[in-house]
Amino acid sequence: MDLVRDTLAGDFRAIARLLRRIEDQPLASRPLLKALYPHTGKAFLLGLTGPPGAGKSSLVDRLVTSFREMGLTVAVVAVDPTSPFTGGAVLGDRVRMQNHATDPGVFIRSLATRGSFGGLTPAVRGVVQVLDAAGFDRILIETVGVGQDEVDVVRLAQTTLVLTVPGLGDGIQAIKAGIMEIADILVLNKADRPGAEQALQELKAMMEMNRSLGVEKPWHPALVKVSARTGEGLNELLERIEAHRTFLTRERPDLLEAKRKDHLTRLILDLVREEAARRTQETLRQNRTWEDRLVQVLERRLDPYTLAEELMDQKHNDPDTP
Amino acid sequence: MDLVRDTLAGDFRAIARLLRRIEDQPLASRPLLKALYPHTGKAFLLGLTGPPGAGKSSLVDRLVTSFREMGLTVAVVAVDPTSPFTGGAVLGDRVRMQNHATDPGVFIRSLATRGSFGGLTPAVRGVVQVLDAAGFDRILIETVGVGQDEVDVVRLAQTTLVLTVPGLGDGIQAIKAGIMEIADILVLNKADRPGAEQALQELKAMMEMNRSLGVEKPWHPALVKVSARTGEGLNELLERIEAHRTFLTRERPDLLEAKRKDHLTRLILDLVREEAARRTQETLRQNRTWEDRLVQVLERRLDPYTLAEELMDQKHNDPDTP
Repeated sequence: MDLVRDTLAGDFRAIARLLRRIEDQPLASRPLLKALYPHTGKAFLLGLTGPPGAGKSSLVDRLVTSFREMGLTVAVVAVDPTSPFTGGAVLGDRVRMQNHATDPGVFIRSLATRGSFGGLTPAVRGVVQVLDAAGFDRILIETVGVGQDEVDVVRLAQTTLVLTVPGLGDGIQAIKAGIMEIADILVLNKADRPGAEQALQELKAMMEMNRSLGVEKPWHPALVKVSARTGEGLNELLERIEAHRTFLTRERPDLLEAKRKDHLTRLILDLVREEAARRTQETLRQNRTWEDRLVQVLERRLDPYTLAEELMDQKHNDPDTP
Repeated sequence: MDLVRDTLAGDFRAIARLLRRIEDQPLASRPLLKALYPHTGKAFLLGLTGPPGAGKSSLVDRLVTSFREMGLTVAVVAVDPTSPFTGGAVLGDRVRMQNHATDPGVFIRSLATRGSFGGLTPAVRGVVQVLDAAGFDRILIETVGVGQDEVDVVRLAQTTLVLTVPGLGDGIQAIKAGIMEIADILVLNKADRPGAEQALQELKAMMEMNRSLGVEKPWHPALVKVSARTGEGLNELLERIEAHRTFLTRERPDLLEAKRKDHLTRLILDLVREEAARRTQETLRQNRTWEDRLVQVLERRLDPYTLAEELMDQKHNDPDTP
């Protein structure tokens, strides 16, 4: 099985194996990612975030069905922040998504936060690259917006949906400024619930206020009321998503380009970070004299900042490092 | 005002200014941290984590009072994972902690997760170093255990308390294996609530099972039932904390030493990561030819992994970098 060739051909088994390989051996699988890279950049990435209970999975389910009806292939990356206390919600989502289990145009991947190799965003980035190269037309990245990490993940997308629901902890208060800023489309889900109209008015007022206060933005976030349960408002949401895509690809390709360049720079800095750490670990392992320096720091005869600087400069002189 | 001298003397205003300086200008304040470093390593660090609603702040409040009664000075670092949806709980805690506001032996610092400069753990590490140098006998690090980041933070401590409460989402299920592993002392809080006895038995059974399954560990986690509200069980908890401290400092200083060395290595790797990223950003800024290489990656004529490698190797040849 040629993992790269078969992934490019869209073979699900190859994709799954490749993803597992990257997760297990991030460094050894680097050549695979290099080989896939020229084939990326075609998928349209849609990010979805919102608090627990906002109905993200149900909405993703609806969107997948709609995209399939349009003849588009879809991949879903469900990011689980793996709370050590409450982790595992995404496994449930996966079960719920079994609607699409037999559809050869839908690939679903759950991703847990790992403490390993560079954090959540690099991990999701790798997965998205594989799915992009595999030829999916749309990639949905779904994450609970509980921390900076999750927000960063969603920013990988070209279009970002922020979900909220009526009656969620003081209504509008539940959406903080930080998360508002990243929304291209603000979605009020569970619009069939009591209090939906009031929540909608509050959101509108807040958006008006933001608009009047803020700098003139090239794209004003849209506000859409939906019910993932009944399907109400779904068509309007799809229109808004398409409108934002057209805006980026046709009207303001410069913004899309700037976004891509920003992501690329972040990716490169993350790669440099990890490579620098890897080289330093190797230096520490290979050269016993560093052991003494570590002990000196523990004994407070040297400070860790100076030692870190020494280690970086040593690397410059080490003929063994590439 | 000499920030370092006054911080070493325990001046609260100096400490607060120094902490703000480090947060705002992490790189420029590096010399201050270097100067403080020789004076660190004396404080005993106590980590506290648990799910929202476990009563962490109330217990911290009790512990602070108890430590003060023993004549010890105490600093509290309350880490807020700053959910973009629900952030800000720690501000409330701060208000609650006003019991100690006028006590010159208690310093309280809230710390929000920031996307900036290397993440949460490095930020907490810096704060702890300052408080340690300032001479506090005990430093309590309190965090909501919602993600890997928060768990990492708590691991900075020498003794880690994991809190749970009766009736919290399927009782025992609420504590996952990952968080159990880091507990030196497992605390069942709100023991005056119905269901406490059952929860205690479940916890005991789970700990027994872990013990029978797991590798023989040098320290078996203690289990303590407390009520932060009534003060019940607090003395036993304090004894357990002291017992673990004695275990580390007297019986097994080798374990304490290994822990310190592990933390130091992590710190150094984090410093190397950030320095490598900083140098790369500078390289990108200063040399326009990299701009072309970035564009080539965007056009898929080059892959980002190769470009990252080029950037790292370029640094080795650059006479301008130190």
